Amino acid sequence: MSARFIPVDPFDLIVFGGTGDLAMRKLLPGLYHRDHDNQLPPESRIIGVSRSETGRKAYAEAVEAAIREHIPESQIDEDTLNRFLRRLDHVALDAAGAAGWKKLVATIGRNGRTNEVRVFYLATAPRLFGPIARNLEAHDLITPKSRVVLEKPIGRNLATARAINDEVGAVFAEEQIFRIDHYLGKETVQNLIALRFANMLFEPLWNSTYIDHVQITVAESLGVEGRADYYDTSGALRDMVQNHILQLLCLVAMETPRSLEADAVRDEKLKVLRSLARIGDEDAEHKTVRGQYRAGAVDGKAVPGYRDELSSREPSTTETFAMIKAEVKNWRWAGVPFYLRTGKRMAARQSEIIIQFREVPHSIFGGATRQMVPNRLEVRLQPDEAIRLFLMTKDPGPGGMRLHNEPLNLAYADIVDVHYPDAYERLLMEVVRGNATLFMRKDEVEAAWEWVEPILEAWERSGDAPKPYNAGSWGPSAAVALIEKDGRNWHEDAF
Amino acid sequence: MSARFIPVDPFDLIVFGGTGDLAMRKLLPGLYHRDHDNQLPPESRIIGVSRSETGRKAYAEAVEAAIREHIPESQIDEDTLNRFLRRLDHVALDAAGAAGWKKLVATIGRNGRTNEVRVFYLATAPRLFGPIARNLEAHDLITPKSRVVLEKPIGRNLATARAINDEVGAVFAEEQIFRIDHYLGKETVQNLIALRFANMLFEPLWNSTYIDHVQITVAESLGVEGRADYYDTSGALRDMVQNHILQLLCLVAMETPRSLEADAVRDEKLKVLRSLARIGDEDAEHKTVRGQYRAGAVDGKAVPGYRDELSSREPSTTETFAMIKAEVKNWRWAGVPFYLRTGKRMAARQSEIIIQFREVPHSIFGGATRQMVPNRLEVRLQPDEAIRLFLMTKDPGPGGMRLHNEPLNLAYADIVDVHYPDAYERLLMEVVRGNATLFMRKDEVEAAWEWVEPILEAWERSGDAPKPYNAGSWGPSAAVALIEKDGRNWHEDAF
Repeated sequence: MSARFIPVDPFDLIVFGGTGDLAMRKLLPGLYHRDHDNQLPPESRIIGVSRSETGRKAYAEAVEAAIREHIPESQIDEDTLNRFLRRLDHVALDAAGAAGWKKLVATIGRNGRTNEVRVFYLATAPRLFGPIARNLEAHDLITPKSRVVLEKPIGRNLATARAINDEVGAVFAEEQIFRIDHYLGKETVQNLIALRFANMLFEPLWNSTYIDHVQITVAESLGVEGRADYYDTSGALRDMVQNHILQLLCLVAMETPRSLEADAVRDEKLKVLRSLARIGDEDAEHKTVRGQYRAGAVDGKAVPGYRDELSSREPSTTETFAMIKAEVKNWRWAGVPFYLRTGKRMAARQSEIIIQFREVPHSIFGGATRQMVPNRLEVRLQPDEAIRLFLMTKDPGPGGMRLHNEPLNLAYADIVDVHYPDAYERLLMEVVRGNATLFMRKDEVEAAWEWVEPILEAWERSGDAPKPYNAGSWGPSAAVALIEKDGRNWHEDAF
Repeated sequence: MSARFIPVDPFDLIVFGGTGDLAMRKLLPGLYHRDHDNQLPPESRIIGVSRSETGRKAYAEAVEAAIREHIPESQIDEDTLNRFLRRLDHVALDAAGAAGWKKLVATIGRNGRTNEVRVFYLATAPRLFGPIARNLEAHDLITPKSRVVLEKPIGRNLATARAINDEVGAVFAEEQIFRIDHYLGKETVQNLIALRFANMLFEPLWNSTYIDHVQITVAESLGVEGRADYYDTSGALRDMVQNHILQLLCLVAMETPRSLEADAVRDEKLKVLRSLARIGDEDAEHKTVRGQYRAGAVDGKAVPGYRDELSSREPSTTETFAMIKAEVKNWRWAGVPFYLRTGKRMAARQSEIIIQFREVPHSIFGGATRQMVPNRLEVRLQPDEAIRLFLMTKDPGPGGMRLHNEPLNLAYADIVDVHYPDAYERLLMEVVRGNATLFMRKDEVEAAWEWVEPILEAWERSGDAPKPYNAGSWGPSAAVALIEKDGRNWHEDAF
């Protein structure tokens, strides 16, 4: 495979939050993989930036330890690792202040080139995005080939999202800003684009005439653990629905873009977001469910409830589970429910998109009719990426017609022991290439907030507490009742 | 699996041509399998009928030898075999004369029941169908639960087909007549019905808007061998196209029947046959190719040409290869070519239906567009039965969009070492059950001849000789040129 990795242009990557969890767990191990596949030009450098004085050597040691922790030994090549560690440098600075910035300027300037791609990756708290941007400009670090990557959350409501976008936008042009959503970097998510638009088979059926409903589930078996106090200021709707789930919904629902160019795709996604039926005080009760897990058991191990994990003893109304029955109000989708749900401490780690086709309008199969199951396309993102198409086929047999539901694996069945670039790796390379197709544009983020905010407000105004659910379950029974009232069921089979 | 075989009602099966090739190679080994799966009621008997005095014992020995020859030893159970052989009897008679018929009456009457299903299987030359039918009636052997099975060929043109239908129809009601086409008993052929009508995914695309063309190939690697002199009176069009290939075409092209009842399906097939655009003197040259094989090599072994296999030294104009570009003139299919071809001594034994979907109307994939291949559904009947759906999916990789054509196995990939009833076995059980869905009705046979006859006449009138092709090739180059002129290609990949 390695011959197929096309090296990107030379770049410097400056990671703010360079000693943080995301950098150590995802970004730097991912970049090691890209180096291993010879995708990084020899002169490209990675500069970790954080508050504390660390030094190049200690930083390289920390990164080496992280790589050895997060990458299987069989995939570590010592020569590559040494080469990779030599790319590293570290600068200590005060992101919002003045200290250390001159050193960053000097470090970046050391290679004597200004014409290289320069990526500023802001893996920091969002409140620092604006100050960092202003400092980058003040120190003349932004070149025409500079890009900035923003990690979620982009705000906690429309106003704060706008403020961040405006602050960063005052310094960077929109096409330089890469709002990252790693769900869009997943193979199966991109494969959904290929399936829809590289095949004649699906697109003519991809509408309310043939699709009964769509389910998008992002279920985690983990709880909030050490992040409880932070999470309590956010909740499932802000943490998962506003970004990841709505992005997945956009890719399922969007019209055919004229090309895969960034703005062509993002124009279509924006249209979907703006077509979402508003859910406010009047219908939040009928179209949404929020929940909060109490103590229970996950994988046979007892786990505490959400409130026990908070440092405050006050009751919290933050939702750790959210379900929404959404609708895209346009000609293609009107009347087709999009059931969205996400939760922590669920029965399984399972993220998937289910495209549920309608029943055939009339069965010609007599007694075998009861064996018929409507067609279904399953796009699984977690725990493993896979796509399965379920078709009815005839049972081989002695005459007569017996039917069974046959799962067809569209991808990933036979890939074993090969490291494919994960979502962050691929998205990072897209940033270097300047390809923003898989990143969110300012107006998308804001449109998503515009839809989410009335739900948040309705919940707040209702005064209702989130419905309790046992850790290790599939969420509050109300979430089951809401879909079953429509004569439908959540897809919960193990894949 | 055996628990799933539902026994049929008690029956007596009388096989005319009971010592012939079809009976020994297919029918009796098939019935052994049905017995092995406990599908045959204990009292059911099988009476072989042929001209020569054989006797029960000698007949049972001959059948045992045939079973041991045609069934793998691992599938032979001695107890079942003995039970099966005890079902057998033999009667010698003159099919067209009077001799022996009384003995048949006595043998059938020996079980003292007249209320059983009684199946007369005419595995004889078609010229005997009428005389046998008359004798059956004359000897009062036809009960209300009697059925007669007619083997192909039903005539050699419209007039002779009508004559056979009329002669048999004078004695048997149409619903008692089972014109067998073993292609319709194949799993994949019936699976095509399941795919089309038990899934929402295909039927909305099953028309000229989404399907570019259809290919039906029945290629044999064998030559005519010992049957040369008989074959010379028939040819590929009569031997394969008029029956098997047109039946396959009907199942691909028919409208949704209201049910799987025999007449509901056969009404739809008949409509297809009557919608076929007539090909006569004026366009046979542009829409058909006929060929005759000359010496060549198949599987690396030299084989003689067709003319060398005939006992006559006269040149023969009989075609061993036929290709037709057909069109179904109705709203669903007008403009979609159905390329039909069949031949002996072809490069491979390969029978298949290819449903070739159109290209997507517009590619959004930029450079990856050149990797795009239009969707295809392959229904293979020989050498193994299988159905594959080809879809474009994304290549897993380091970012960017690379596409590849992924074959999905819809059936049969994982079935090993299990005996599934073959086409004859299942069709025989359908006869006992009285289910005529997979058998041809009188008007279908005649409609097929009505379409084939003008082609035969055009060929005759043209005075052209069949185009020569080398044994072991894919037929005359003209057959390739005819489809390539349309910008298309024959599907010739090994499956």
